[in-house]
Amino acid sequence: MFDTAQTLYIAGMVGVGVFAVSGALAAAEKNLDILGFILFATVTGVGGGTLRDLILDVDVFWVAHPLDLQICVAAGVLTYFVASQFLERQRLKRALLWADAMGLALFCVLGTAKAHALGVDPLVACAMGLITTTFGSVTRDILSGREPVLLGQEIYVTAALSGALSYLVLIHWLESEAVTLILPMLIAFLVRAAAMVFDLRLPKYSRR
Amino acid sequence: MFDTAQTLYIAGMVGVGVFAVSGALAAAEKNLDILGFILFATVTGVGGGTLRDLILDVDVFWVAHPLDLQICVAAGVLTYFVASQFLERQRLKRALLWADAMGLALFCVLGTAKAHALGVDPLVACAMGLITTTFGSVTRDILSGREPVLLGQEIYVTAALSGALSYLVLIHWLESEAVTLILPMLIAFLVRAAAMVFDLRLPKYSRR
Amino acid sequence: MFDTAQTLYIAGMVGVGVFAVSGALAAAEKNLDILGFILFATVTGVGGGTLRDLILDVDVFWVAHPLDLQICVAAGVLTYFVASQFLERQRLKRALLWADAMGLALFCVLGTAKAHALGVDPLVACAMGLITTTFGSVTRDILSGREPVLLGQEIYVTAALSGALSYLVLIHWLESEAVTLILPMLIAFLVRAAAMVFDLRLPKYSRR
Repeated sequence: MFDTAQTLYIAGMVGVGVFAVSGALAAAEKNLDILGFILFATVTGVGGGTLRDLILDVDVFWVAHPLDLQICVAAGVLTYFVASQFLERQRLKRALLWADAMGLALFCVLGTAKAHALGVDPLVACAMGLITTTFGSVTRDILSGREPVLLGQEIYVTAALSGALSYLVLIHWLESEAVTLILPMLIAFLVRAAAMVFDLRLPKYSRR
Repeated sequence: MFDTAQTLYIAGMVGVGVFAVSGALAAAEKNLDILGFILFATVTGVGGGTLRDLILDVDVFWVAHPLDLQICVAAGVLTYFVASQFLERQRLKRALLWADAMGLALFCVLGTAKAHALGVDPLVACAMGLITTTFGSVTRDILSGREPVLLGQEIYVTAALSGALSYLVLIHWLESEAVTLILPMLIAFLVRAAAMVFDLRLPKYSRR
Repeated sequence: MFDTAQTLYIAGMVGVGVFAVSGALAAAEKNLDILGFILFATVTGVGGGTLRDLILDVDVFWVAHPLDLQICVAAGVLTYFVASQFLERQRLKRALLWADAMGLALFCVLGTAKAHALGVDPLVACAMGLITTTFGSVTRDILSGREPVLLGQEIYVTAALSGALSYLVLIHWLESEAVTLILPMLIAFLVRAAAMVFDLRLPKYSRR
């Protein structure tokens, strides 16, 4: 139905969109004005991919294609009006975490795939997947003065890592490129969703 | 009197200088030593333009022209000696905000103009103006553990946006390039100054 | 015994390693899981050099040579297991500061040398040395919600600056390139070590 380039393109847009919504929801938690919503949506939506592209020394993806920025602006504006109508205070944080989980699933695979296509070492591709996934949300959380979500109790980086690693394995096994992209996204999302629903954690460092 | 290139060059220097002073005043608030003043002056003065140039994939402006760094060092040293002589504690924050407002007015237009000259989409040019304006002061505020000034109650991003947008409109209307640069700077400064003096705010997101 | 390229290469690896350990020790302070250790080790180990390479517009050093990332991962994993066995809580912070001091000594000189070799102005080379030294640890501290170590009471930026400046002086005087690298590293380390042991400080800005 879709070829790989289209799948990548659409998945990237969706990823930017859901991360942008998670950023706008963080702005709602801070009671910012509408420009604050747009700002948080944009930083969260394109932050990770921007750092990835800078490090890989390729054109930053949204400079030549303003559609990504338009999505972020739209996500900020829509969230501003919708969130104040339909979301109660205590549901904001939950909605933010689910939007963040969807963005995580998309970006950990897309970031890894973009780096892998440039021929870098798998470890570097993996790092790029994690950077794409985490940098936007880390910036969102630091800007709003919150503990970065990836340092939280529940499994977060592990979920992104499961997506990146399964992509790097599957690309040698599967013929369908679309499935090679979508299956690791599902894996990452399920790991993160399970962590959120069942409150899963890795063992912590035990101090004496 | 001045041609465009000269106007841009001088305005850029002035912008770096006033932002550097605002950074040094933040160091004064933290009671840092003289190197802390220089560090904060430099990060605040060149931070925004650095990120803009990285994203636009052009040479970072201060790498080939150390004059900008020299201005930051001088601003840090001068503020260290002058601020301790002439500024009372409660005036520090006020002086910081006014220096910041001047830097905002210059950088929102200069950043937009530099991106626009490279032929990017107006929305992208606008984002570059905002990045140039805000990234230095955001870094200054995060480094010193304060709430970023752009998340404050008063209009801030709106002022930068008014400068960026009016530049993008005026460049199609006006013949004088110098006026096309200076008029939007005045607009941005007046919006920010009005916001500070009259405590203007956009409507906040209303939680239930 | 070693030529310059080898000395630079090995010193760079050691610098990445000790900064990575300091990052992992910060993760230990936060009681993170093993992926948190790896994440903090990596960000602290390669963060400064990454920003330096981006600004200098050269290839980011670890993209083509995954050995640096492998060192960070290994440092994170080893620290996770070793720190919990051998380090008492109150020694963690001390160990972190000493690892940080070693990284500082290596990176302030290596960063300056890399920039100087590209022919930039000495002031810019100096700034690059400071960026390489400080950006990783600043990111580590901001991520973990602590006051950046470079804003602390003791001499920190001064130590990095002494390494950068002495390198820029010695490179015109000494014939042995290895000594030109190692002597400034010793100077920077001794300045920082003396500051930590004797609690040395520069005069603070005195408010009225």
